[in-house]
Amino acid sequence: MPLFLDSRAAGFDRSFTEFLGAKRESSADVDGIVADIIADVAHRGDEAVIELTERFDNLKLTPQTMAFSQGEIDTAVKTVPKEERAALELAAERIRAYHERQLPEDARWTDDTGAELGWRWSAVDAAGLYVPGGLASYPSSVLMNAIPAAVAGVERLVICAPTPNGAVNPLVLCAARLAGVETIYRIGGAQAVAALAYGTNTIAKVDKITGPGNAYVAAAKRRVFGRVGIDMIAGPSEILVIADKDNNPDWIAVDMLSQAEHDESAQAILITDDPDFGEAVARAIDKRLETLERAAIAGPSWRDNGAVITVRDMEEAIELSDRIAPEHLEIACAGAEDVAGRIRHAGAIFIGQWTPEAIGDYVGGPNHVLPTARSARFSSGLSVLDFMKRTTLARMTPAALRAIGPAAETLAISESLEAHGLSVRARLDALNEGED
Amino acid sequence: MPLFLDSRAAGFDRSFTEFLGAKRESSADVDGIVADIIADVAHRGDEAVIELTERFDNLKLTPQTMAFSQGEIDTAVKTVPKEERAALELAAERIRAYHERQLPEDARWTDDTGAELGWRWSAVDAAGLYVPGGLASYPSSVLMNAIPAAVAGVERLVICAPTPNGAVNPLVLCAARLAGVETIYRIGGAQAVAALAYGTNTIAKVDKITGPGNAYVAAAKRRVFGRVGIDMIAGPSEILVIADKDNNPDWIAVDMLSQAEHDESAQAILITDDPDFGEAVARAIDKRLETLERAAIAGPSWRDNGAVITVRDMEEAIELSDRIAPEHLEIACAGAEDVAGRIRHAGAIFIGQWTPEAIGDYVGGPNHVLPTARSARFSSGLSVLDFMKRTTLARMTPAALRAIGPAAETLAISESLEAHGLSVRARLDALNEGED
Repeated sequence: MPLFLDSRAAGFDRSFTEFLGAKRESSADVDGIVADIIADVAHRGDEAVIELTERFDNLKLTPQTMAFSQGEIDTAVKTVPKEERAALELAAERIRAYHERQLPEDARWTDDTGAELGWRWSAVDAAGLYVPGGLASYPSSVLMNAIPAAVAGVERLVICAPTPNGAVNPLVLCAARLAGVETIYRIGGAQAVAALAYGTNTIAKVDKITGPGNAYVAAAKRRVFGRVGIDMIAGPSEILVIADKDNNPDWIAVDMLSQAEHDESAQAILITDDPDFGEAVARAIDKRLETLERAAIAGPSWRDNGAVITVRDMEEAIELSDRIAPEHLEIACAGAEDVAGRIRHAGAIFIGQWTPEAIGDYVGGPNHVLPTARSARFSSGLSVLDFMKRTTLARMTPAALRAIGPAAETLAISESLEAHGLSVRARLDALNEGED
Repeated sequence: MPLFLDSRAAGFDRSFTEFLGAKRESSADVDGIVADIIADVAHRGDEAVIELTERFDNLKLTPQTMAFSQGEIDTAVKTVPKEERAALELAAERIRAYHERQLPEDARWTDDTGAELGWRWSAVDAAGLYVPGGLASYPSSVLMNAIPAAVAGVERLVICAPTPNGAVNPLVLCAARLAGVETIYRIGGAQAVAALAYGTNTIAKVDKITGPGNAYVAAAKRRVFGRVGIDMIAGPSEILVIADKDNNPDWIAVDMLSQAEHDESAQAILITDDPDFGEAVARAIDKRLETLERAAIAGPSWRDNGAVITVRDMEEAIELSDRIAPEHLEIACAGAEDVAGRIRHAGAIFIGQWTPEAIGDYVGGPNHVLPTARSARFSSGLSVLDFMKRTTLARMTPAALRAIGPAAETLAISESLEAHGLSVRARLDALNEGED
C-alpha cells in the first residue's frame, strides 16, 4: 500500500523525513566490475568491445559491423509507420524550437579602467549519446539528447545503443536520423561508455557523454567523468502532483501512473489539501491498475514508493515540494501559476490541469532528461548549455594595467607567488620608464 | 630540460601527441581511503570529523570550536595590512561586477498552439566552499568561489579550510568576510567534503561543493557527486602562451613562471613562430629561476613539464592550442584579437602583451577557477551558473493539447507506455465530449 501521510498528524515531520531519505534503488555495487571493463577497453580497444558485446548482448560484432550502415538505417526507417514518423517529426520540431531559445549570448564590454572583458561560448567538438536497449529504448530520448547537441553546434554526434541478440527498435534509428545523427554503434553498457571516453580504432573518442542507462552505465559515467564531460547520474523517475479537489481524480491517477509504469523503483506522490480527494485518486489508481498493460511494474512502484500527503493548505504543499525537489512537478490547483512561481526546486513544472506530464516527455518542447533523486536542488535538466562551454576573455590596456596591476602585485606577494607579481611588475616598470 | 618541438621536424605529430597524453599528476590511488573516511563521517558525524582532524591536521577540535567564532575572525581580520585589504577589496569589487553580468534570464513565451513554455532560474539553497590549507591557501580563491555564489543568491554559504597545527591565514578570513561568508569551519580533506555532503550535528549539509583541493579532496568530491553538486575535479595549473618575436622575452618568461611556481606538476608551454624568440624566452626563464623565491618548485615544473613549440605560422598555433585546450591562454602576437576569436577550446584567454595571466588570478574580474587537464574541451570556468539551476515550465491550454496531444499519445503507445498515453487521452476525450 502506498504511504498516506497527513501534515496535521503527530510525528508527521519525522515520517516525512524518513520518506525523503528512503532509498529506492537497489544498490548493487558494480563499481569493481565497471573499473575492469573500462581498463580492458582502454587497453585492448575494439577487441575488448567485441568480446564484451558478445558476452553481455549475445551479439557477435566485427569492427565493420559495429556501426549500423546507412543502408541498414534506411531499411529500418522505412518500416516506421507514417503516423509514428509524423509524431516524431512534430516532437523534433518542437524540441528544436524550445532549445534554440537556450543558445547563450557572448558578451564583451569595456570597463572604466579601459580593460576589455567578456566571454564567448562554443560547442564541444564531439558528443556521444547513450541510448539504453531493451525495454527502456526510447526514441523520444534520442531526440531529447541529440537535438540540444545539434542546436549547440556539436560537429560530431554519435549514438551508442545496445542491441541485445541483434534486436533494434526502428524508431530509435528514425529519431537519430531526424536529429541529424549519422553514426550509431550497436554497443552498450560500461564498454560503450569506455569506448566513447578512450576511443578505439573504430570508435573515435568524444568530449561529452550524455544519456540514461542502467547501474553499469551510471558507474562508468562516474568513472570517466573528468576525462570527458557527462550530463548527470540518472536515477529512477519521479512525479509529484500538487492538486486540489477541483480535479478529475482519474486524470491525476493516470498522470501518477505514467511515472509509476517506468520502473518498479519509480515514485509517484500526490500532495493535496483535501483528504477525500487523495482517497479518490488512490481508488482511481487501483481501478486503472486493474487493466493497465504495465500493471506489473506500475503496481509495485505505487504500492512500495507511492504516497498521498494531505496538507493544511497550498503554502505547506510548496514547502514540502521544495524538500522533495521533484524531477517532475504537476500543479493542478487554484492559483497554479502563483504556486509554480514560488517553487524553488524542481526539474520541470507542468502547470494546470491541461498539462499532463507525458506532454513533456514527448512533444511539449522542454527536455525530458531531468534531475532525479532530489538533485533538482542543485542541477538542471539537459540543455544546449550541456554541449557548450564558456571561454572568458580579458584584454588590458597600459592604462588598465596601471589602474589595477598594483593590487594584483600586492595580492601575489601576500600569497608568496613572486612570479605572479613579477609578471605585472615587469610591465608596470616599462610603463613608468616610458614616462620618464 | 623543457621539451623543444618544431612543427617542421619529422615525427612532430607523434611527439606532440605523446606530449599531450603525458600524465603530470602522481596517480596515488587514494580512493579506498577516501571511501572509508566518507562512510565514517556519514555514520559518526562530528565524532569522526574531530578524530580525523586530530590525525591529519594535528588539531584538537570540539563541536564548539569547529567553526571560527566571529570574535576570532574579527581579531584575524584586524591584523591584515591596509594595502592588502584594499587590494582584496578592489579584487572583490571587480569579480562581483564581472559575475553580475552572468546572471541568467528567465524566459516565458506562448507558441502558435497556445502552449505557454519557458524556464526559470533559481539559486541553490546552500553551498560549501573548500579552501585548501597550507601553501595553497589563497585568499583570492575564496573570492573567486564565494562571490559567484553570493551573486547567484545562495542563502547559506560556508567555508571549510583546514588549519594544520591551528595555523590560519588571516587574509583567508578577511576575504571570506568581504565575500559575505560568515561560517568558516577549521576542517579539511575528505572529511570536510563528507561533512558538507552528509551533514553532522554541527555542520549542516549543503547542496553544492566547490573549490580546489588535493588528491583526497578530489576523490571525495567525485564520490559525493550526485548526492550534492560539485564544480569540477581540478588538476595542476597550466598556461599556454602564443607569442611572436615582437615581445619582451622576459615578460613572457615571468608569465610562464607564474604558472610553473604553483606546483611541480604545473605546466607552461610557449608556442611561437620564431625559434630564436623561443630560445630567448627559455634563456630568460633560466635567468629568472636563478633568483626566483619559488625556484625549487618552478624549476622542476619548467624542466619536467615545460615546452617550447615552434610553428610555421599562427594558423598552426591556433590548431595546436585547440588540441591542448589550455586552462590559461595568453595571446601576444600581431592580430591577437583575431587569433583569440578563432580559438575554440580554452578556459580563459588573455589578449595582448599588456595582459599577463596573473591579472586574471586576482583583479581582472573573470573567474580563476578554470578547467585543467584538457577539460576546457567540454567544461567552463566557475560561474554564477554553477550555483543556480533551471526549472522548465510548460502550460497547455485545451487548444494546445488538441494540437499536440495526439502525437504524444502516438509516441507513448509506440514506446509501450500506456499510462503516458492515457493521461493525454483522458483529457482529449473530455474535450471531445464537451464539443458534442
